[in-house]
Amino acid sequence: GAIPATVAIVNGKIMVGLSEDEIKLLGDAIVSKPIKTSRRDMPYVVSNKLNGGTTVCGTLIVAHKAGLPIFATGGIGGVHRGAHKTFDISADLLELGKCSVAVISSGVKSILDIPKTLEYLETQGVFVATFGDTNEFPAFYSRISGSKAPYCVETAMKAASIIKCNRNLDMRSGMLFAVPVPVEYAIDPETMNHVIEEALREVKDIALIKNNAKTAADIAVALAELELVEEKFSARGKRVDSNSLEDLKGRP
Amino acid sequence: GAIPATVAIVNGKIMVGLSEDEIKLLGDAIVSKPIKTSRRDMPYVVSNKLNGGTTVCGTLIVAHKAGLPIFATGGIGGVHRGAHKTFDISADLLELGKCSVAVISSGVKSILDIPKTLEYLETQGVFVATFGDTNEFPAFYSRISGSKAPYCVETAMKAASIIKCNRNLDMRSGMLFAVPVPVEYAIDPETMNHVIEEALREVKDIALIKNNAKTAADIAVALAELELVEEKFSARGKRVDSNSLEDLKGRP
Amino acid sequence: GAIPATVAIVNGKIMVGLSEDEIKLLGDAIVSKPIKTSRRDMPYVVSNKLNGGTTVCGTLIVAHKAGLPIFATGGIGGVHRGAHKTFDISADLLELGKCSVAVISSGVKSILDIPKTLEYLETQGVFVATFGDTNEFPAFYSRISGSKAPYCVETAMKAASIIKCNRNLDMRSGMLFAVPVPVEYAIDPETMNHVIEEALREVKDIALIKNNAKTAADIAVALAELELVEEKFSARGKRVDSNSLEDLKGRP
Repeated sequence: GAIPATVAIVNGKIMVGLSEDEIKLLGDAIVSKPIKTSRRDMPYVVSNKLNGGTTVCGTLIVAHKAGLPIFATGGIGGVHRGAHKTFDISADLLELGKCSVAVISSGVKSILDIPKTLEYLETQGVFVATFGDTNEFPAFYSRISGSKAPYCVETAMKAASIIKCNRNLDMRSGMLFAVPVPVEYAIDPETMNHVIEEALREVKDIALIKNNAKTAADIAVALAELELVEEKFSARGKRVDSNSLEDLKGRP
Repeated sequence: GAIPATVAIVNGKIMVGLSEDEIKLLGDAIVSKPIKTSRRDMPYVVSNKLNGGTTVCGTLIVAHKAGLPIFATGGIGGVHRGAHKTFDISADLLELGKCSVAVISSGVKSILDIPKTLEYLETQGVFVATFGDTNEFPAFYSRISGSKAPYCVETAMKAASIIKCNRNLDMRSGMLFAVPVPVEYAIDPETMNHVIEEALREVKDIALIKNNAKTAADIAVALAELELVEEKFSARGKRVDSNSLEDLKGRP
Repeated sequence: GAIPATVAIVNGKIMVGLSEDEIKLLGDAIVSKPIKTSRRDMPYVVSNKLNGGTTVCGTLIVAHKAGLPIFATGGIGGVHRGAHKTFDISADLLELGKCSVAVISSGVKSILDIPKTLEYLETQGVFVATFGDTNEFPAFYSRISGSKAPYCVETAMKAASIIKCNRNLDMRSGMLFAVPVPVEYAIDPETMNHVIEEALREVKDIALIKNNAKTAADIAVALAELELVEEKFSARGKRVDSNSLEDLKGRP
């Protein structure tokens, strides 16, 4: 099986894999005051020995440096509605165009502009596929967004094979696999347009991220079977902490 | 003289230089089902052992990895009209900003937004010049677009000297030389706004690409004379096939 | 103390540090015909042995290659007003996303669209901070723009520590420190909307760039104290000239 490792910054140290105490610390926002850490924030948070949860962009940077081929998250950032006037576009999209890492997510939150986000990812050269039996691109809580992914990948082994290929070709650009939320947790698009209770959302969020983590683990195991990253994965499970991402290279 | 090498993907293998059988195979779209392969498509096409014709973006990636300094094409992709609302921008433009390769083309198809395309290329740091005696930027079938290129380069030797310089400086960004369609094949801009018969277009397309290939060959020969890539060009004419672009480095 | 080195292109040679004769030559625009040199222009200017003043983008490229961690300038380029329709966006912003160099400037000229420029820098992953006691982002002649920087850094030593961290982490993206124009030279925003006399502006420009250069020097000294670039700085003050940026690596 695959051994998951949480990425975060603790007292200015970039961590791949957290202890229980560290998870507790970050969970207590009043004490740890964690900063949402994207590319631009990383030198500030590390330099000032602060705590930080990494955005998809931040996690991509750490995963790339640490040689991790895959990670799971909820939804990625995207092009905001009205971005043609505000220029509000998540750094996640640009980083996906630069790092050879596969992100397993539930697509893009419907609060964002999904068609523009998919166009932006195409311009950046990011491979985008749904995972399952339809190329309908999912919108986080909803299995339907009205947009189509360019590709649909049916099995973990097929996904692993494409990821392996992306790395073998040294493409230096990332991949997005969008896993539709399981039917039992899906919200129909109409409901999406109403305010959703916080409590309800939290339960669903956890279910959804668990499902993505399971899919990521399946693909990671398939990838290991393809022997690509065998050596790297054998070292998994060790905790890594370092001020220097360089030191992370080749670690779990 | 220069020896041209067609770039394509055959049964999941990236090829620089095709055999006659392979050209026939790719020509028969019903049998080969070629996928238009840009950056985002490459790992999918290679992983699934499919056939693919490469876009300018895809060809840039292969040429860059193979150390080819120049290639010829028809028109490059660009910013689509209405892109400020749709975000529909070709990955060709971003790749031109990343690969030290010179593309010899007939400019940008007039169906695209040429002023926005030129602005986008400037932001990406791409050297853009017309080839000939005017800096009027050509629009594929037409010698006139109403937009100006920032530079005009008159001779193959001058173009070769700039390309050599771009490589010596290790700029890691590309160059676009726009060759106006020869007068005898040009269409006046008014006609451009009418539907053009498919048959007519095909004849013109071939004439136009032949002219670009000739210009590219002239510049390649001049570049070889400048001794920059002498060693690399001496190996030209050999066929290369490989699953790994890494293996292509320094080849033909 | 820090020894400043002016970046320019003289007769096609990229220079870090100019002689008095060279400064005189470039100052006489009628004789030297200097070309404003951004990324896209560099191979043309060098290849044709022309003279050029480098834009922020051009200076970033040279500084990055030469291993210089910091430079001072007036204002950086940005997103032009109306850019959502014209796509007119300075190559400075993209280059800031690619080079591990800190730029000390007076922010962005108010003729540009400052909120869009800050959004664009965020997407590119550029660390942006004001230098001083407020995170109000300055607009060149004015201390007030109405936009806020994501961070505020109070001292040269703190700035140096963040720059050191950015380099240690091998982030490969740049940093913008915006220094508000000193109060005695500031223009209130209302006046900004009127035409400013050329003569007045020139005096102010010099005062403003001097202040940025002083701040850059303070940070450079603090950085040297942090021992990060000690070795590199010890070689400072030597003049460098070279056709090849590669040769510049590790020099002053």
